[in-house]
Amino acid sequence: MSHNTFGHLFRVTTWGESHGPAIGCVVDGCPPRLAISEAEIQGYLDKRRPGQSRFTTQRREPDTVKILSGVFEEGGVLLTTGTPIALEIQNEDARSKDYAEIADKYRPGHADFTYQAKYGIRDWKGSGRASARETATRVAAGAIARKVIPQVNVRGALIQVGPHKIDRANWDWAEVERNPFFSPDVRAAEKWADYLDGVRKSGSSVGAVIEVVAEGVPAGWGAPIYAKLDQEIASAMMSINAVKAVEIGAGFAAASLSGEENADEMRMGNDGVPQFLSNNAGGVLGGISTGQPVVARFAVKPTSSILNPRRTVNQQGEDVEVMTKGRHDPCVGIRAVPIGEAMLAIVLADQFLRHRGQVGA
Amino acid sequence: MSHNTFGHLFRVTTWGESHGPAIGCVVDGCPPRLAISEAEIQGYLDKRRPGQSRFTTQRREPDTVKILSGVFEEGGVLLTTGTPIALEIQNEDARSKDYAEIADKYRPGHADFTYQAKYGIRDWKGSGRASARETATRVAAGAIARKVIPQVNVRGALIQVGPHKIDRANWDWAEVERNPFFSPDVRAAEKWADYLDGVRKSGSSVGAVIEVVAEGVPAGWGAPIYAKLDQEIASAMMSINAVKAVEIGAGFAAASLSGEENADEMRMGNDGVPQFLSNNAGGVLGGISTGQPVVARFAVKPTSSILNPRRTVNQQGEDVEVMTKGRHDPCVGIRAVPIGEAMLAIVLADQFLRHRGQVGA
Amino acid sequence: MSHNTFGHLFRVTTWGESHGPAIGCVVDGCPPRLAISEAEIQGYLDKRRPGQSRFTTQRREPDTVKILSGVFEEGGVLLTTGTPIALEIQNEDARSKDYAEIADKYRPGHADFTYQAKYGIRDWKGSGRASARETATRVAAGAIARKVIPQVNVRGALIQVGPHKIDRANWDWAEVERNPFFSPDVRAAEKWADYLDGVRKSGSSVGAVIEVVAEGVPAGWGAPIYAKLDQEIASAMMSINAVKAVEIGAGFAAASLSGEENADEMRMGNDGVPQFLSNNAGGVLGGISTGQPVVARFAVKPTSSILNPRRTVNQQGEDVEVMTKGRHDPCVGIRAVPIGEAMLAIVLADQFLRHRGQVGA
Amino acid sequence: MSHNTFGHLFRVTTWGESHGPAIGCVVDGCPPRLAISEAEIQGYLDKRRPGQSRFTTQRREPDTVKILSGVFEEGGVLLTTGTPIALEIQNEDARSKDYAEIADKYRPGHADFTYQAKYGIRDWKGSGRASARETATRVAAGAIARKVIPQVNVRGALIQVGPHKIDRANWDWAEVERNPFFSPDVRAAEKWADYLDGVRKSGSSVGAVIEVVAEGVPAGWGAPIYAKLDQEIASAMMSINAVKAVEIGAGFAAASLSGEENADEMRMGNDGVPQFLSNNAGGVLGGISTGQPVVARFAVKPTSSILNPRRTVNQQGEDVEVMTKGRHDPCVGIRAVPIGEAMLAIVLADQFLRHRGQVGA
Repeated sequence: MSHNTFGHLFRVTTWGESHGPAIGCVVDGCPPRLAISEAEIQGYLDKRRPGQSRFTTQRREPDTVKILSGVFEEGGVLLTTGTPIALEIQNEDARSKDYAEIADKYRPGHADFTYQAKYGIRDWKGSGRASARETATRVAAGAIARKVIPQVNVRGALIQVGPHKIDRANWDWAEVERNPFFSPDVRAAEKWADYLDGVRKSGSSVGAVIEVVAEGVPAGWGAPIYAKLDQEIASAMMSINAVKAVEIGAGFAAASLSGEENADEMRMGNDGVPQFLSNNAGGVLGGISTGQPVVARFAVKPTSSILNPRRTVNQQGEDVEVMTKGRHDPCVGIRAVPIGEAMLAIVLADQFLRHRGQVGA
Repeated sequence: MSHNTFGHLFRVTTWGESHGPAIGCVVDGCPPRLAISEAEIQGYLDKRRPGQSRFTTQRREPDTVKILSGVFEEGGVLLTTGTPIALEIQNEDARSKDYAEIADKYRPGHADFTYQAKYGIRDWKGSGRASARETATRVAAGAIARKVIPQVNVRGALIQVGPHKIDRANWDWAEVERNPFFSPDVRAAEKWADYLDGVRKSGSSVGAVIEVVAEGVPAGWGAPIYAKLDQEIASAMMSINAVKAVEIGAGFAAASLSGEENADEMRMGNDGVPQFLSNNAGGVLGGISTGQPVVARFAVKPTSSILNPRRTVNQQGEDVEVMTKGRHDPCVGIRAVPIGEAMLAIVLADQFLRHRGQVGA
Repeated sequence: MSHNTFGHLFRVTTWGESHGPAIGCVVDGCPPRLAISEAEIQGYLDKRRPGQSRFTTQRREPDTVKILSGVFEEGGVLLTTGTPIALEIQNEDARSKDYAEIADKYRPGHADFTYQAKYGIRDWKGSGRASARETATRVAAGAIARKVIPQVNVRGALIQVGPHKIDRANWDWAEVERNPFFSPDVRAAEKWADYLDGVRKSGSSVGAVIEVVAEGVPAGWGAPIYAKLDQEIASAMMSINAVKAVEIGAGFAAASLSGEENADEMRMGNDGVPQFLSNNAGGVLGGISTGQPVVARFAVKPTSSILNPRRTVNQQGEDVEVMTKGRHDPCVGIRAVPIGEAMLAIVLADQFLRHRGQVGA
Repeated sequence: MSHNTFGHLFRVTTWGESHGPAIGCVVDGCPPRLAISEAEIQGYLDKRRPGQSRFTTQRREPDTVKILSGVFEEGGVLLTTGTPIALEIQNEDARSKDYAEIADKYRPGHADFTYQAKYGIRDWKGSGRASARETATRVAAGAIARKVIPQVNVRGALIQVGPHKIDRANWDWAEVERNPFFSPDVRAAEKWADYLDGVRKSGSSVGAVIEVVAEGVPAGWGAPIYAKLDQEIASAMMSINAVKAVEIGAGFAAASLSGEENADEMRMGNDGVPQFLSNNAGGVLGGISTGQPVVARFAVKPTSSILNPRRTVNQQGEDVEVMTKGRHDPCVGIRAVPIGEAMLAIVLADQFLRHRGQVGA
């Protein structure tokens, strides 16, 4: 069972609400003797942290991570011991009063109504567990997952904001580090800046599409039938707040291709390793990695926290209007980039360990 | 762990290769005293069975299901007992000689290469475990899942073949039963017939998009974070052979919407139950059902078994050409409709039991 | 969840009732390229098969096992492929009429009452799923588990029948193969023969204690806290029908020892490997194997199927008497020896794969 | 997978080392709207806390528990919300210097050697994860488990210290609360006080046997085959540090009984509910509860931390001697009473939710 746990041999259990004292996660099953540090984890958290540009929420959380267990110092280096690694982040900038007005109103597009329907109670302060704040702990866990598979390079990029897509011909990974959108296309980033300024000023929001890529995955990871690598990637991405769609390789476009176009042909490489001549498969065939880059895309809906009034009902069963007063993200999809990377790293670390368990290499 | 098992409280474990003596599944965790029969399960299998029209493979498998355990007769009715239900289907029309030529060639777009890379051995007869034949057992299990949630109506339809989409204005569920494509749009079905005749005669294949819908799901099923209802639907659909993409509700289109457009507003209904004024969410918010229809779509790639030669390599590391000689499906997406329905039913039955476990209703 | 599944990476799911058409199991997660054969599995089943001496039930089941999936022939040898291995055994000598009289009576000491209380229905023919017949599939799965850990030698012996214990000074593993009790003490076996003849003729039954030992387990298998090797052995043994107690190493006797007596001291061996000077720990410290033999014992209660009338109630809520008319085992503990071995092999195979997954060796 | 997690629907994941900054656990799957408080949890922790009498270790840990998530206040009452409950306890009285001398020596009877063999690294300060300190988090989780099953009364008692057993004729539950041993037999408690004074002064230690009992469990909890109620109790008890044996009901003594003696007969009670005339089964038949008290016993070995020198080896492969200098428990079994209770409560809460999931009541 896995309501708040992801993974099997490499397992992440998260806990905590947006406006409680802290959030955290427990990373279980990590191999021993991997060097980790709070500073390194912090680097990934800082990429996700809000308030770094005018395009994300102005909530100011330092998101300082502490490692509470599962490590031991040898020669000045913190090493994993193979036991559970507990990570914790204090909540600091919680303004619960921003939420008082919506204590009994179901915000459209939010989980207010469904949590109440399920549990008969909900933590309405800062959306409780449904807040994107939970994803900070995923990013921290993802930093550890990367150490499990050092041969793999997991990167992500924003490739669409609202209706505006990048031009893939301009793709430059180096550019991703330089603009506030994680855009691989510098010209798209410029366009998005203007576009999002308008969205932000109008109190509205827009969706986005993120692409995550893992290079260096050898052929053979994943498993048939119900533990397919692409299945677990789909599960991982769809578990992120506000994600409504996910695709692997050619994805939905594969429906329109012919069998000849779609099936990636092979030829022997000069190094004696089979080469694929294209990558419509997104690096996965039959649920198992091919050795090509693993490529996934996912769509994030526009945040439903907007400054314009919307029709809804309240807990008393009355028709009312609601509008968000707190700080808001005009495009939550931006901050989803490091989250998608983290989830991909977690899936791959887990599949690597499971593969090694069954097959031994 | 779940390499060949799907679900938690309602669990399905499948086994069997395409050209072995039989395939089957074990359905564990089913509530007791549900009336089931081989005839009823057979009805769903017949929908998926190959060879029913010229648009699917001509392999002739009767796919006769036997119930081997987990039931007890009372008053002439077969009732579940709460113990594991074993279902078995004999393989009958296996022509392994069709496959001899490809025993050591990796067919592009197939799992031949990746199974070999992972396991160092593979059952090349009829693609072994990677064959779509495994999905027959899912359909059988899905028939039982439906009995667990009789209040829910799970249906599916083909909405795109190659680049040709239905016109949603023509949607008629009754039509789905009447044409060989499970198309809700009779005019699209006619167009597809012509189109697929051409594809078939040219020895090629095309992809497709399927939509599955569950009506009658009450608000409150699903769970936050890593057991989201939409996450598990994504996982279920992506576990089906050849599926490369999945989306919930507005899906990828949500990326292009504004927050105002996307968030489904609410009003109290005359019956005192909150009503949503739209369903961009596809019936799921925060991973929990809203009470609206649950709507998912998934894309199936064109089958890679085509009659035209393609470049590949063999197990000896030589460049070779390969072409399929056996029977083939010009559009495997057609038969994916009952499979998608079955997987959706399995996800919902499992989530229902888990919800009842935690919350008690 | 694991109601009918045991293990994690090496997983066994069993199904089937005593008087249904067949019983079987699915072994998932087995490493690829292990040579297995029906004949080898059959060898273990034959050890457990009833009707081999006058001391076990006279039910005559050939218990012929068939491998239905998960294997592929290469060069005349059947190799595992890494996919699920389905094993099936037809039921042949089911005499349901023996059970008609007890269709609505709860036999004392049996699961009749509790199954009815739980499920509101039960398969009263041959005790359905609660029959020891299910354990045949465990023995079959255990035969495969042994192939996963060829360096480990798993053996079992009967060490007590009713109140009569073996003399450990007489322990001779070779003797276990020679008498119908799996007794390592030939003199105890002689005594038991007389004793059990009396028990059988009086229509009564007695309990027994079994010891299982695994030699060749390297130091390092198992895991802390909730996946302790001894914890999983306890779980495995207690999952066998009629088992009421389990202990590791010194077991209950450890309570009476001093810390000095109990803690196994260590000295470096001539081969540079640490040696333990005793084995009160039974080969497990902190849930992890020490490299010494893993030793467990478990107690089997006397079967409740006896020929003497006993007081009980029926489904109609009336006080009645019940007696078993069918064939019965005077000491079911005898046949528990190969079952205990199989479960120990399954635990070790699973822990080996999980250890290899996390630690890589 | 469950290396640091116990349970399925009601799941407890623990983390933390003895000498790290804190220890804690995450309780997932708890039903919503249960009233819990730190004070109530603290009550159970105080029962387990060291340093309360001269018969337990003098380490002085206040063991103050904090609830960090999963609750929401309504009308001054803290209610569970159905989301993960994180509990945390700061470590305060850690004297790592007591351990410096044993940094590279494997203490006999401890997990030092096996952790090193498994992971190639170990936290030698205070035994790290192998310390009994981890059990504090189990007790905290057990306090929440009790709220899930308020109809059930879980209690435990110490019934043997070293070779000295209680006289069951003197059993008085009220007495358990009054003496420092949780003894139900006041005369045994007096004898143990003298006996343990001697053990303590000699720097030695002794083992113990604990009995845990759950009253109020209705017939029908548990599940057949691999989720038997007694199997999970065995697993839970054997997961506690230093436990080497566990039995249910008559336990090992059942081996010596006849079928007539062992099988608990039944008669209709005046209230129309079937009554058992004895309870050799310990409240479990076929893995499912009978409605009688659930009774389990487990043996705790003497702690291996003794003040007398013992032969061992060190990490450098040399023969050395080792003795414990830190504070020590002459009989760790005493503090195992509240731990056993907590684990039994966790098993029952989980089985209750799973039963409700499958069967609906």
